[in-house]
Amino acid sequence: MKNHMEKTEAFLRLSSVLLLVLTALLIGLDHQTKFVFFAYRKASYDNVHALVVLVYVDAVVAGYNLLRLFGQCSSTPAAWVKANPNGSNINLAWLSLLLDQMAVYVAFGANSAAFQASVLGITGIPDFQWMKLCNKYTKFCIQMGGALMCGYVACLLLISISFITAFNLFRQYSPKRFLLLKSISD
Amino acid sequence: MKNHMEKTEAFLRLSSVLLLVLTALLIGLDHQTKFVFFAYRKASYDNVHALVVLVYVDAVVAGYNLLRLFGQCSSTPAAWVKANPNGSNINLAWLSLLLDQMAVYVAFGANSAAFQASVLGITGIPDFQWMKLCNKYTKFCIQMGGALMCGYVACLLLISISFITAFNLFRQYSPKRFLLLKSISD
Repeated sequence: MKNHMEKTEAFLRLSSVLLLVLTALLIGLDHQTKFVFFAYRKASYDNVHALVVLVYVDAVVAGYNLLRLFGQCSSTPAAWVKANPNGSNINLAWLSLLLDQMAVYVAFGANSAAFQASVLGITGIPDFQWMKLCNKYTKFCIQMGGALMCGYVACLLLISISFITAFNLFRQYSPKRFLLLKSISD
Repeated sequence: MKNHMEKTEAFLRLSSVLLLVLTALLIGLDHQTKFVFFAYRKASYDNVHALVVLVYVDAVVAGYNLLRLFGQCSSTPAAWVKANPNGSNINLAWLSLLLDQMAVYVAFGANSAAFQASVLGITGIPDFQWMKLCNKYTKFCIQMGGALMCGYVACLLLISISFITAFNLFRQYSPKRFLLLKSISD
C-alpha cells in the first residue's frame, strides 16, 4: 500500500512538472502586436515584471520536482522520499518537506501576483489613469488567462504533494509524546 | 508536553489575529490627498480592488482564528483541537486542518496580489503608459509597505499553525500501513 502512495506521489510530481512547463511556455510565448496610439505596439510578457518572475519561478519549481522524481525512481529511493525512523534520514525527510513547502508557497505567491497584474490589465485603475489593456490585446489576455489557470492547477498538485510528504514524515512520530519517534511496529 | 504544544498554538493564533487586524487597519486607514494633474486627488485603498479584497480576507481569517482560539480555550477543547484516534473526532481534525490550510492560502494569495499591485505603484509599467504613483503619494506607499510586511509575518504564523495541526493529526496514523489509525499506546 505504501508503494501505491509512492506511485501517486510520482504521478503528481510528473503532472505538476508538465503543468509548470506548460504555464511557463504559454506565458513566455505570449505576445501580440497591435496598432494603438498612432503606432504599432507590442504586448509581451516582459513588459510586466510579475510575469517574468513567474516564468523563472515555474521553471525552477519544475526543475526541483523533476529532480525529486528522478531521486524517487532511482535505485536508492530511501534517502529522499522515505523517513526512516531508526536512521538519520529523518533529517532528510524534514528537509524534503521544507523544500516541498517552499516550492508550493513560491509558486502560489508568484501565480497570485501575476493574476493580480492580469486583473489590472482587464479592469485598469481609472482613478490612477491606468487604462485597461485587454480590450486592445484580447488574444494576449486570453492566452495569459489559460496560462494562469494551468499555474493554479499546478499549485493544487504541489499542495497535494506536500500533504503526502508531511503525512509520511509526521506519522513516524508518537501520538502521545511530543516529537518522539515510534520504534514499535504497529 | 502536549499541553506545551497547545499553549504554543494558542499563542500563535492570538499573534496572527493581532497581526491580521493590524494589517487590515493599516490598509483601511491609509489615504493621502495631493495636488496632482491640476486638481486635488486622493489615493485610498479602495482605488485598488486587490487592497479591498485583502482587507476583507484578513478580517475573515482573523475571525476564524479567533473562533478557533475560543474553541481551544473553552471547557470542551477536545472536539476541535485534538484528534481522538478512537472516536469520530478524527473527521473534525481533518476538517480543522483543511480550514487552517485554506486560511493560509487565501491570506497568502491575497497578500501576494496586493504586494504585486503595490509594486506596480512603485515601478509603473512605462510600455502601457501606467505611471508610477509612489513618487507622488509617498506617505501612502510607506504605510502600505508596512501593512504588507505585517501581512506576510501573519502568513508565516498561519503556516506554523497549520504545521502544528497537521503534525497532531498525522501522528495518529500508523507509520507502516496506509491511513490506519494507531490504537497501541507507544
